[in-house]
Amino acid sequence: MQPFSSRPAGTVAQLGEIALIAAIRRWLGRAAPPSPAGMGDDCAVLRPFRGRPLVTVDPVIYGEHFDDGNTPREAGTKLFRRNLSDIAAMGGQPVAAVVSIACDPSLRIAWLEAFYRALAAESRRHGVPVVGGDLARLRGGLAATLTLIGRCGGRRAVTREGARRGDWIYVTGEIGGSREGRHCRFAPRLREGEWLAGQRAVRAMLDVSDGLAKDLRALQPRDARPLLDERALPVSPAARRAARRSGQPVVQHVLTDGEDYELVFAVARSADLQSFETRWRRAFPRVRLTRIGHFAAPDAAVPAGHLTLADYRGFEHLRSDSANRA
Amino acid sequence: MQPFSSRPAGTVAQLGEIALIAAIRRWLGRAAPPSPAGMGDDCAVLRPFRGRPLVTVDPVIYGEHFDDGNTPREAGTKLFRRNLSDIAAMGGQPVAAVVSIACDPSLRIAWLEAFYRALAAESRRHGVPVVGGDLARLRGGLAATLTLIGRCGGRRAVTREGARRGDWIYVTGEIGGSREGRHCRFAPRLREGEWLAGQRAVRAMLDVSDGLAKDLRALQPRDARPLLDERALPVSPAARRAARRSGQPVVQHVLTDGEDYELVFAVARSADLQSFETRWRRAFPRVRLTRIGHFAAPDAAVPAGHLTLADYRGFEHLRSDSANRA
Repeated sequence: MQPFSSRPAGTVAQLGEIALIAAIRRWLGRAAPPSPAGMGDDCAVLRPFRGRPLVTVDPVIYGEHFDDGNTPREAGTKLFRRNLSDIAAMGGQPVAAVVSIACDPSLRIAWLEAFYRALAAESRRHGVPVVGGDLARLRGGLAATLTLIGRCGGRRAVTREGARRGDWIYVTGEIGGSREGRHCRFAPRLREGEWLAGQRAVRAMLDVSDGLAKDLRALQPRDARPLLDERALPVSPAARRAARRSGQPVVQHVLTDGEDYELVFAVARSADLQSFETRWRRAFPRVRLTRIGHFAAPDAAVPAGHLTLADYRGFEHLRSDSANRA
Repeated sequence: MQPFSSRPAGTVAQLGEIALIAAIRRWLGRAAPPSPAGMGDDCAVLRPFRGRPLVTVDPVIYGEHFDDGNTPREAGTKLFRRNLSDIAAMGGQPVAAVVSIACDPSLRIAWLEAFYRALAAESRRHGVPVVGGDLARLRGGLAATLTLIGRCGGRRAVTREGARRGDWIYVTGEIGGSREGRHCRFAPRLREGEWLAGQRAVRAMLDVSDGLAKDLRALQPRDARPLLDERALPVSPAARRAARRSGQPVVQHVLTDGEDYELVFAVARSADLQSFETRWRRAFPRVRLTRIGHFAAPDAAVPAGHLTLADYRGFEHLRSDSANRA
């Protein structure tokens, strides 16, 4: 859906700011608590919570993270979930969200309504109120930025640091081809992340946003590099479709497409993998868990059927060319 | 300074994402704590803090909140301070900030460096680390969104609700003509806000962002409206200059220019004003404090020299025309 209208009727400019804020409150409904816990004052005042606070911020921008081929509902869902995925990657729980919208005055009210109703649905689904926001003008564009506050409820926050040489590499779900649709429909791995934070053997974790090849580099210890078992990779059907279309190898899509929003994590070399995997299946019988490789010494031989990430790169932000989508 | 360059040399596109993130870390310096307390993981992990958490978000957008006539330093300073001002308006203390940048790849590195160095200066000045952020592409534009986490340290949060008929209206500093330069240079009233939150007589408060005329409506009780003593208004020299240029009455500028970032608050009718004002002067000898009027019954007679706000309106966001700047 094209977000902007060439005629003034039905645009946010026509509605005006006060009516628009009232409409947003209505669209958010139960997702927006009354002031001062929610919108309407200079700040939102949250209830104190236990544990270390977490903060993350990610936008969705028209032409970058979504386009005319996406519904406003998909854009809103994606915005909320990509931030939830960051909380999941620390093993945390989401607490509250604020949403800042910058848009051309020609933005269709209908677009914005569907977008906010999607935010409201995510808010209710995950019990995370939308407590504030901002509306500003951005000529010729549309960007929505969501900041999510979370908490580590007593348990540790699982960071990207901590993997050691020899540790196993696991990933949830299936990877690659997210642009075929999954990037707007994925389920953030909140329960899984929290469970993993409770497992001692899990040493480091992140969510796959820029592609496994790029993101795994952030997880690797200084004295090791990832060695992946190519046949083990949990290839998504979308990655196969994308490969048929692009003519590139499937593995290229799996490693570099990005926006998978699956959890990738390191498990201690010394861990009882069978026990770990059995407990996972008991906790999450419907979520695939795959051991895809391990962190090996940089000069270690590459066994048959295995690959290093030297020839792959993930999504590069801020490039001026279209190489990222090539 | 024009933020964008027509030649690739010296633009963020040329630098690339990884080098750019390294540069941002360098520009922020001590303002950016190491991961996971700061940038570099999926979320920032904050230290637990006492009191109710506060959250606010405000952007600065090229062409809206700043333009070629502003330095990048001014844009960065303004971004941080307008959010600090929201924390001040609750009587809170700032804790941590995250900054999301969306920009065209032709953004000059020099622009971004000066912008981040301004954020770093504000961070150090107020002891508020920049703990995270995001970089994304926005074709043809430049928008920076800062979310500020704060806390109400044991004391109450002063909301916009609570003023009663008969209450006095006070404002800090001087008002009007902020566009002449002050909108990028004001000092957020953090210490003052915290002090006011400790005064029982202060019933409701906000910071003046869209103009006194518009913002005072958010403070007024249901059964009253503001009556202002025109001669008492603390007119800024910039408001007088703006009036000379525009040909409009000075009071128009004072009431509707906006972006003053001063605190306006209601003091209980029954309060000992002399004592209150004496204590203020002792605490803040260099900050002007002015009683500008009171909340009167809607049908109360308007005394000579007084005005209601019926004929004035403040800044309207999302208008498609240029009426806001008329």
